[in-house]
Amino acid sequence: MGVTLGQLASLVEGTLHGDAQLEISGASIIRDSQPGEITLADHPKLAKDLARCSAAAVLASGEFAPADMPVIVVANVHDAFAKIVAQFRPNLAQHKPGVHPSAVVADSAVIAADASIGPLVVIGEGVSIQSGVVIQSGAQIGAGSVIGAGTFLFPGVVLYENTIVGANCILHASCVLGAFGFGYDSASGKHLLSSQLGNVVIGDFVEIGAATTIDRGTYGPTVIGDGTKIDNQVMIAHNCRIGRHNLICSQVGVAGSSTTGDYVVMAGQVGVRDHVHIADGAIIGAKAGVASDIGAGLNVIGSPAIPAKDKKLEVALLSKLPEMRKQIKALLARVAELEKEDELRKTA
Amino acid sequence: MGVTLGQLASLVEGTLHGDAQLEISGASIIRDSQPGEITLADHPKLAKDLARCSAAAVLASGEFAPADMPVIVVANVHDAFAKIVAQFRPNLAQHKPGVHPSAVVADSAVIAADASIGPLVVIGEGVSIQSGVVIQSGAQIGAGSVIGAGTFLFPGVVLYENTIVGANCILHASCVLGAFGFGYDSASGKHLLSSQLGNVVIGDFVEIGAATTIDRGTYGPTVIGDGTKIDNQVMIAHNCRIGRHNLICSQVGVAGSSTTGDYVVMAGQVGVRDHVHIADGAIIGAKAGVASDIGAGLNVIGSPAIPAKDKKLEVALLSKLPEMRKQIKALLARVAELEKEDELRKTA
Amino acid sequence: MGVTLGQLASLVEGTLHGDAQLEISGASIIRDSQPGEITLADHPKLAKDLARCSAAAVLASGEFAPADMPVIVVANVHDAFAKIVAQFRPNLAQHKPGVHPSAVVADSAVIAADASIGPLVVIGEGVSIQSGVVIQSGAQIGAGSVIGAGTFLFPGVVLYENTIVGANCILHASCVLGAFGFGYDSASGKHLLSSQLGNVVIGDFVEIGAATTIDRGTYGPTVIGDGTKIDNQVMIAHNCRIGRHNLICSQVGVAGSSTTGDYVVMAGQVGVRDHVHIADGAIIGAKAGVASDIGAGLNVIGSPAIPAKDKKLEVALLSKLPEMRKQIKALLARVAELEKEDELRKTA
Repeated sequence: MGVTLGQLASLVEGTLHGDAQLEISGASIIRDSQPGEITLADHPKLAKDLARCSAAAVLASGEFAPADMPVIVVANVHDAFAKIVAQFRPNLAQHKPGVHPSAVVADSAVIAADASIGPLVVIGEGVSIQSGVVIQSGAQIGAGSVIGAGTFLFPGVVLYENTIVGANCILHASCVLGAFGFGYDSASGKHLLSSQLGNVVIGDFVEIGAATTIDRGTYGPTVIGDGTKIDNQVMIAHNCRIGRHNLICSQVGVAGSSTTGDYVVMAGQVGVRDHVHIADGAIIGAKAGVASDIGAGLNVIGSPAIPAKDKKLEVALLSKLPEMRKQIKALLARVAELEKEDELRKTA
Repeated sequence: MGVTLGQLASLVEGTLHGDAQLEISGASIIRDSQPGEITLADHPKLAKDLARCSAAAVLASGEFAPADMPVIVVANVHDAFAKIVAQFRPNLAQHKPGVHPSAVVADSAVIAADASIGPLVVIGEGVSIQSGVVIQSGAQIGAGSVIGAGTFLFPGVVLYENTIVGANCILHASCVLGAFGFGYDSASGKHLLSSQLGNVVIGDFVEIGAATTIDRGTYGPTVIGDGTKIDNQVMIAHNCRIGRHNLICSQVGVAGSSTTGDYVVMAGQVGVRDHVHIADGAIIGAKAGVASDIGAGLNVIGSPAIPAKDKKLEVALLSKLPEMRKQIKALLARVAELEKEDELRKTA
Repeated sequence: MGVTLGQLASLVEGTLHGDAQLEISGASIIRDSQPGEITLADHPKLAKDLARCSAAAVLASGEFAPADMPVIVVANVHDAFAKIVAQFRPNLAQHKPGVHPSAVVADSAVIAADASIGPLVVIGEGVSIQSGVVIQSGAQIGAGSVIGAGTFLFPGVVLYENTIVGANCILHASCVLGAFGFGYDSASGKHLLSSQLGNVVIGDFVEIGAATTIDRGTYGPTVIGDGTKIDNQVMIAHNCRIGRHNLICSQVGVAGSSTTGDYVVMAGQVGVRDHVHIADGAIIGAKAGVASDIGAGLNVIGSPAIPAKDKKLEVALLSKLPEMRKQIKALLARVAELEKEDELRKTA
């Protein structure tokens, strides 16, 4: 796997300052770099870390190119470093077109010739798998589901019946689309499950994290809009309609029938109650609890969520509470003293 | 799939006001309705949305039957609409009795003749599967487990050894029953796992959401009572004993050895510490952190959780903090002024 | 399964006070104990519960040995009780060395002769499975992964490509190691996934809970240190570096590139933002939101997390807010009255 610094400079079409014959053994970030490896520095503030690290060479941009070690200068440091890392860590997985013999595929399923169906995958009746789809091992595709062109499913994904996934999506391991909504009518002391006749409909270019769950609608679809990215362990409840290009971080929960506009961002562990709307471009801070509609472009935090500047003021004031309490006690004493004086004067 | 409005009225035994020959192409909620479809309206406040939607007809109750579009009037709108939606969305999944040839079943397992075991299911030694059970593809049933009559397991469910599931339960995809409890004795700088000899025991008519995890007891069972419904991504720790007919919403976490009475409700993302008891009928608000016992019928919110009315007062007062701080500052100035006057008078 | 109290006393090398011929039918904790069973009491405060329970005998330590029922006295109650419970609940699972015929194993994988690979496991190209490893049914091991000696994988575990797991680890059902980090560059209205060239590296003696997800690094590894124990439904994001012997409870989320020292404890539902460091021995209370670095040995709670003693003061003061508000109002009235008197006096 030996490669020279000159070869790496050619690979990324960069300008080399240093010994082109230097052997490079690997690529890693500054924190993890070992002797003989190349690292990257995307910001001048990393100069000190870089000086201390063990790397033999560095990939940097024109603005920041350290003089004291071999450097490859490029315009886009991240794109170039990704190419170099890939050089040292070739992708092992083979996705040969075709259906692995251990997969269990229903007779009525239709699978594109260039799709790749991995070992021990189960595909139900009436499923449609379109061109270029990759389904890795152990995924379970419920009857009537449709998977759009170019979409990639990691191991253990579960699609319940009639799930519709768009094109060019990525579904990570063990995510579950289409489980029953948590809706009950309570009658005579028992909780009776509501209808579960809807499904889940995912747009194009959507990414869904590992162990994320998106429940089916009561009668119609739960919808995730085009371009939206959802992290691991997120819960989207029945009847929700998530807009386009949202970013939903890990462990967020959105309760039933809530909706979002486009370009909404929710940080980690946010909770959203049922039947609220979060408008275009709103940003919900980590751990916020959204209990009512949020206007377009607003930045809210806290639980219940309020505008970030109000919450920050509140937090600052909370730290003043001990002082405030002391001041009130002192005032009470001083006013009592003044009242006593005043009383004396009156009776004098 | 063409069906007339008259046929749908007969199906739900409703009273039709409008053209019985009208062709209906589908059924969906107001938000999603398309031309040619029937929708439902379960409340007069929906009148405006209904007027704006594209539906060709509506299902409504007697109290609210719009005059300007074809309507089927029924007593129970939701039951009737479920029948209509089912008409348009037939259930594709076939659950034929028998064991799929790709399933791996231990010799000592006993499976009822009318149970349905799907593709690539694994069933361990000594497992008992009772009448009418359906186990969908890819589920893993640990040795010694028992699954009661009429219970339904979705794909990818994992039961560790000796898990006992009652009758008529629903277990959603990728839930995990019986993993080790998170209990450690820390000795000489290492964390040593406590005993994991218990199991998980689920009552009858229990529903467990996707990716929910319920850990085994240390020596005895972790118990979920009859009729309790648990949403997705809930965590119930070792030795817990959840009562009957609880409703536990998504992303709730209950720590070790805590217990609940009957008809307890926990909203989303609640956390309950270890060794506390939540009594019958208590309601725990979203994101609450329960740090001590909660009395019967109490409604608590916040973290630490306190009665909802106290918490609401606290939130209201928090919004007064800036005003309070200003008032204290003004008081300090005014009292200082009075004291100065008083001092002058005394020395006068 | 009949066993006498005398046999149990021998098993645990304890001192028996009572009838050695008494037949014991099972073992359970006080709360769950049935007639004929033996229970344990590890603390004098349990005397009352013990007197009320149905157990036929008890295992206790010297300090606390009730006089009125048969008792086996031992030094370490928990170790002894675990032996007794195991006696009544033999482990059913057989882990015979070898590869189950239904497993799908790539030609280039190397599997130790004494490893046990269960039914329907999938093992990718270039995987290395070392001595004594047990992989239960339905696990998916991505290409290039390494699993160290003595490590145990429960059903449905998913390892993405190139995951490195140390020796003597326990990975619980449906945990997912190596899914993509949630990092995006947003350009021209679209979110473009960052590089996913790193992997996950797990130390020795690490335990990982059910449905926990640990994402791969951008270029290098996400690391979990030796001896660290992680509960169910925990999320560790890309590029994190968790120290040794941490205890991370259920539903914790740690955002990208954050790091911890050794012996850190995080209670349930903690959230940690990206790029912070939690130093050795810090304790993060349940539901805390860590928004900045935490010093060694600190105990923090709340969101944003602050030292526990400050937070407790804050909570106490919050409960005083209604009183403080009343006091301020009263002060305002009293000072106004004094000012009026003062004014009168001046104008007199």
